[in-house]
Amino acid sequence: MHKESRYKWIKGGVSSPQGFAASGIRIGVKEHAAPDKKDMALIFSEHPAVAAGVFTLNNVKAAPVILCQRHLERQKGMRAVIVNSGNANACTGKRGLADAEKTAALTSKALETSASSVLVCSTGTIGVPLPMDKIAGGITLACKNLSRAGGADAARAIMTTDTCAKQVAVRFKIDGRDVLIGAVAKGAGMIAPNMATLLVFITTDAMVGRKALQSALAVAVDKSFNRVLVDGDQSTNDTVLCLANGAAGNFSLTERHPGWPVFRKALEEVCRRLAEMIIRDGEGVTKVIRLTVKGAIDDADAEMAARAIAHSLLVKTSWFGADPNWGRVMCAVGYSGARIIPEKISIRYDNKPAVLRGRASGLPPEQLHRIISKKEFSIEIDLRQGKGTYSMLTCDCSLEYVKINADYMT
Amino acid sequence: MHKESRYKWIKGGVSSPQGFAASGIRIGVKEHAAPDKKDMALIFSEHPAVAAGVFTLNNVKAAPVILCQRHLERQKGMRAVIVNSGNANACTGKRGLADAEKTAALTSKALETSASSVLVCSTGTIGVPLPMDKIAGGITLACKNLSRAGGADAARAIMTTDTCAKQVAVRFKIDGRDVLIGAVAKGAGMIAPNMATLLVFITTDAMVGRKALQSALAVAVDKSFNRVLVDGDQSTNDTVLCLANGAAGNFSLTERHPGWPVFRKALEEVCRRLAEMIIRDGEGVTKVIRLTVKGAIDDADAEMAARAIAHSLLVKTSWFGADPNWGRVMCAVGYSGARIIPEKISIRYDNKPAVLRGRASGLPPEQLHRIISKKEFSIEIDLRQGKGTYSMLTCDCSLEYVKINADYMT
Repeated sequence: MHKESRYKWIKGGVSSPQGFAASGIRIGVKEHAAPDKKDMALIFSEHPAVAAGVFTLNNVKAAPVILCQRHLERQKGMRAVIVNSGNANACTGKRGLADAEKTAALTSKALETSASSVLVCSTGTIGVPLPMDKIAGGITLACKNLSRAGGADAARAIMTTDTCAKQVAVRFKIDGRDVLIGAVAKGAGMIAPNMATLLVFITTDAMVGRKALQSALAVAVDKSFNRVLVDGDQSTNDTVLCLANGAAGNFSLTERHPGWPVFRKALEEVCRRLAEMIIRDGEGVTKVIRLTVKGAIDDADAEMAARAIAHSLLVKTSWFGADPNWGRVMCAVGYSGARIIPEKISIRYDNKPAVLRGRASGLPPEQLHRIISKKEFSIEIDLRQGKGTYSMLTCDCSLEYVKINADYMT
Repeated sequence: MHKESRYKWIKGGVSSPQGFAASGIRIGVKEHAAPDKKDMALIFSEHPAVAAGVFTLNNVKAAPVILCQRHLERQKGMRAVIVNSGNANACTGKRGLADAEKTAALTSKALETSASSVLVCSTGTIGVPLPMDKIAGGITLACKNLSRAGGADAARAIMTTDTCAKQVAVRFKIDGRDVLIGAVAKGAGMIAPNMATLLVFITTDAMVGRKALQSALAVAVDKSFNRVLVDGDQSTNDTVLCLANGAAGNFSLTERHPGWPVFRKALEEVCRRLAEMIIRDGEGVTKVIRLTVKGAIDDADAEMAARAIAHSLLVKTSWFGADPNWGRVMCAVGYSGARIIPEKISIRYDNKPAVLRGRASGLPPEQLHRIISKKEFSIEIDLRQGKGTYSMLTCDCSLEYVKINADYMT
């Protein structure tokens, strides 16, 4: 194995790569939150950083999403990401966009940089204006608290119904230099009246070309965050950002650089690890299911079939009940839109065949029940039509999920 | 109002129209079912009847669905519908189709008619072969028990997790003759390891042209059963059948007959009433929501937006919790695929505006909470883009829904 492909996973997060600092503080956005709940995070790069972003495809985009997209188009060197939890600044009209702009302006002033070099993210209640007095005071404190050890505080500050902070960091070599990627995420946790929102911030001290970074991030997101499904709802605020500040001193990474595959693989693995953390910490999740559809006519068909299964409320509740109900899986494949011949389909749970050629394999239901009782198991559906495949991670739908999301809080 | 458009709704069901008889008996398909649970129904027409059918679009079709489609293509005069609950005869391969054919053959023999004049339906467990010995014995008894008063027994026999039998009957005049339509349905109730299945049987003594009946039934189904959504899963067995035996003695109804609109309207109203019964008796349903999307660019966009809302687990659980969470409704509209401008959208709950021009209207959350606490309320989303509209009925997702569908029973 090439020397540069050795990855060392270390304790750390967004402030681990050189030239980055972070902070996480409490400003009290949400009145009924726990008194020690941090709710503002700041990530800062000492040098202007090349930045890439992937955003929600929802047509109802929160104000900070619109702002991030504009700033990424306008400006090449990014300096900071300012984040609040507790309020999504979504469906807040012109005032919402003005508030996001003011947040960027206040942050840039405190950090002595330009407003368009600041990215802004929010997660929380929809339809309520941001409490700008708290935000303004918070920004001053967040800038004052910036430190190389602040990544963990930032990780806690962006949490909503997440039960644990989610961060990773990895070290590897490019051009003989130590390069780090650090990252933090908040998961698919929702609490009424909040929205499920995925926020992911990735920092690296690698020097990376802008187009190369954007394309690598898009691929990494597609292979990771786009392949976890908790409830199928897509938020107004989903945002994945990556900042590369070049402090490691390598030659600029593009597709032609021999170290490019090493960097890309690291970025993909960072995203994959965070995606797994997110699904494991999904609301009310008691079981994680590794779902693979193979033998489809093409990959798109395989994806349609996998998503139909992962999205089916009947399938998800049967997993919660450890019910060996492969009929519901067959049914979901049937209405998925994928081109199938029912009599060709086989379904395996942890490699044990439950369905062969569209019919019960004769595997005792007790054996199937034992597999589906596990906290983690795999289901493989073989359509035997072609070479299309798709894999994803999903989870059950539990009583706790309904309780969390039915909880009425004003 | 034209004399013929007066509809008299009467107590009754599939055996109410002239020349029809029905029965419902217990054969014990499911071993763990309650000892008095009837599970075989027979509907019989003394005269060959013109028949129409609408079936599941699922690519995994149960054997009886395939049989019904074949018989409807092959034969003009139908005589009987034989139905079992407790076993879906789905994913049962060649043996399943042979069993459905044998069921038709045994019924036709007992009724002294041809096998292809018998339609067969099943609902229940997937992947388990039909217990043909019980089916065979049952057919003899079901034929013996046929009576003009048997509709109510048939209604009970097709139930699975339905908590009440669902039947309607209506009388009106065509060509000066009394015409009746009677109907029975089982709902979107599922119990592990069963599938959600919609079965609807409609009988009428009107004389109706075959093509006219098929087109009227398709329209009626689209306006009714296709507009209720419990959990978004589409069964392998969904079947709606309509038999018209002409015993009323009217001139044959086609689009050109002056009484055609009267008949069509009655058929649509029969379907609409059954659809409402089905959603009210949906599994674990505590709230029924009348959802309307208007002002869409076209009807297809309105339907996409309505279905995204009705299918959203986050929206459904917030309804269960009486949470005035219009942000989740906005979010679902945003990812529905409908062409929207968020700043134009307004949302009304029981005519009270919660959202105006994409932002909170200022309506106190307590007032919204009171509306959403009701057992039945309406939500109207105005996209203000065009003239497209779509209406449907949907329901909440409750703890009871998860309990029912997680229930592990072998």
